[in-house]
Amino acid sequence: MKAIVFDNELKLDNNYPNPMPQEGEALIRVTLAGICNTDYEITKGYMGYVGVLGHEFVGIVEKVNSNKPEDLKWIGKRVVAEISWGCDDPNCEWCAKKNYRHCPNRHTIGIWKKDGCMAEYITLPTNILFEVPENVTDEQAVFVEPLAAACEITEQLHIEPTAKVLVLGDGKLGLTTALTLNAHNLDVLLVGKHQNKLNIAKAQGVKTKLLSDFIPEKIYDVVVEATGSASGFETSMSLTKPRGVLVLKSTVATGKELNLAPIVIDEITVLGSRCGQFAPALRLLEKNRIDFKPFITQTYTVENALEAFEANKSKESLKILIKF
Amino acid sequence: MKAIVFDNELKLDNNYPNPMPQEGEALIRVTLAGICNTDYEITKGYMGYVGVLGHEFVGIVEKVNSNKPEDLKWIGKRVVAEISWGCDDPNCEWCAKKNYRHCPNRHTIGIWKKDGCMAEYITLPTNILFEVPENVTDEQAVFVEPLAAACEITEQLHIEPTAKVLVLGDGKLGLTTALTLNAHNLDVLLVGKHQNKLNIAKAQGVKTKLLSDFIPEKIYDVVVEATGSASGFETSMSLTKPRGVLVLKSTVATGKELNLAPIVIDEITVLGSRCGQFAPALRLLEKNRIDFKPFITQTYTVENALEAFEANKSKESLKILIKF
Repeated sequence: MKAIVFDNELKLDNNYPNPMPQEGEALIRVTLAGICNTDYEITKGYMGYVGVLGHEFVGIVEKVNSNKPEDLKWIGKRVVAEISWGCDDPNCEWCAKKNYRHCPNRHTIGIWKKDGCMAEYITLPTNILFEVPENVTDEQAVFVEPLAAACEITEQLHIEPTAKVLVLGDGKLGLTTALTLNAHNLDVLLVGKHQNKLNIAKAQGVKTKLLSDFIPEKIYDVVVEATGSASGFETSMSLTKPRGVLVLKSTVATGKELNLAPIVIDEITVLGSRCGQFAPALRLLEKNRIDFKPFITQTYTVENALEAFEANKSKESLKILIKF
Repeated sequence: MKAIVFDNELKLDNNYPNPMPQEGEALIRVTLAGICNTDYEITKGYMGYVGVLGHEFVGIVEKVNSNKPEDLKWIGKRVVAEISWGCDDPNCEWCAKKNYRHCPNRHTIGIWKKDGCMAEYITLPTNILFEVPENVTDEQAVFVEPLAAACEITEQLHIEPTAKVLVLGDGKLGLTTALTLNAHNLDVLLVGKHQNKLNIAKAQGVKTKLLSDFIPEKIYDVVVEATGSASGFETSMSLTKPRGVLVLKSTVATGKELNLAPIVIDEITVLGSRCGQFAPALRLLEKNRIDFKPFITQTYTVENALEAFEANKSKESLKILIKF
């Protein structure tokens, strides 16, 4: 099968071996996949991962290796899948809470111990599959994973309806987070450097401000750092009000000298936030609360996958999709 | 009056003007004061503060400038006082919650816009005074402010009784925190470099371990960083389990290159924690739940105050007290 593989270099492999579903697994024909910045990081060595890339996809279940009705019911269904699954050992505290992403024996699609979705086929355990609601197109459903990551904030943190929420950064992460918190009826301001990107959120009801027009004030109860830049963390600290919460979403800001004293002096909570569960994200999509169409910069066919990865590098790009 | 003053240099002033209580204020004769590391930081320029040093004290109210019975009742009482007071404007969200330390118009004893307690007399608003319970000696009561700072963790954070709690650092801050969380019936392990300091906590029922004997594992639900060292934050991160809480108590760890990615990957909460309210701290003292006697390295008279500050610099010192 065709597969986009990273193995010291990024390549399109036209003869990658077809995967075989193990007991309890489904064989899924991938129809659409999205490039995430994590995929790009992997091509630079992140996690030391080697294999098929990708963890954002929509597909159709073609086969299931199981006799159980709860597995067989998936055949023919249009599905998305959570990014990680765990050991499901009854003694595993993470799996008991469905926080598979922290299970020490987890597999993570296209990132850790499991081939990714940028291939014609992928096999996955049926218990991490979700059926895509009929009214949700592939082009919307392919965003469920980053949308779930934005919803994660609402799982970790109770944001009071009176809270002033600031999202810093107008890349995919910042836009998705601002739209998501806005869809939860919160008072959100999105600040970024690109009017064209801000306009995507603005058109869907989010208050936006260009960084150059933004007056920095230490008045925000919740600040989401989504700039991915090294200075973003310190800027976020300076805008978080005493006893407020700074949600750290981007992992890129590393290796910089930091003064952490403001965290103590202002008793700020810094909350690391990563992937999320799919159910609330699918609800948002089903109810048309967020439109991801304006995120799509371009859709490539698998044959042009290398070109797609090249396009993803551009600062102008938002989401690049790959059709299988 | 005699006062220990910082004004470019640390000095004992034998003729500092006696303070006059304003309307609603009490005139307090200080009997005992403690040196906090913040006092030492101020002598190095922290906060740009100039004036009488000190915020840890016990004293006797000699006079009150008020006709109100609720103020007059304080005369003759042995008291301690919260470190900050706010504007008490009914529209101030901080004062409404008694979180005076975050009121933008606050005064903080010996740190911000208010002379400290290292003098024969101090004037303070009666509404920040607390009567010292009869069974609590001056030598215990003088620890109420750092004890309140340790209790602050229990105000900010619900620590489940099943949580594994680790306190890193066996200075005054670490010892007080470990003893306080232990007094709240939590499962606490204190790790430090000094057997003699660890023994103070051990003698009062805290589990302790020398750093050299400690096997680092990422298994702690709550880690309190109380080392005050630049590497303490990263060590604490590496010991905090996914979705756990790293309580940041010391403000010293600054200006170091830090990789914050583990906060996001493990979804750690970093909780800045500072001063606390006095009521719960006084309850612990009244019930004899913590004995601070072993903390006292030496007590100096005010005449030997400079010597006391010198002694405070020694790594061997815990608490240095000054008698007035």
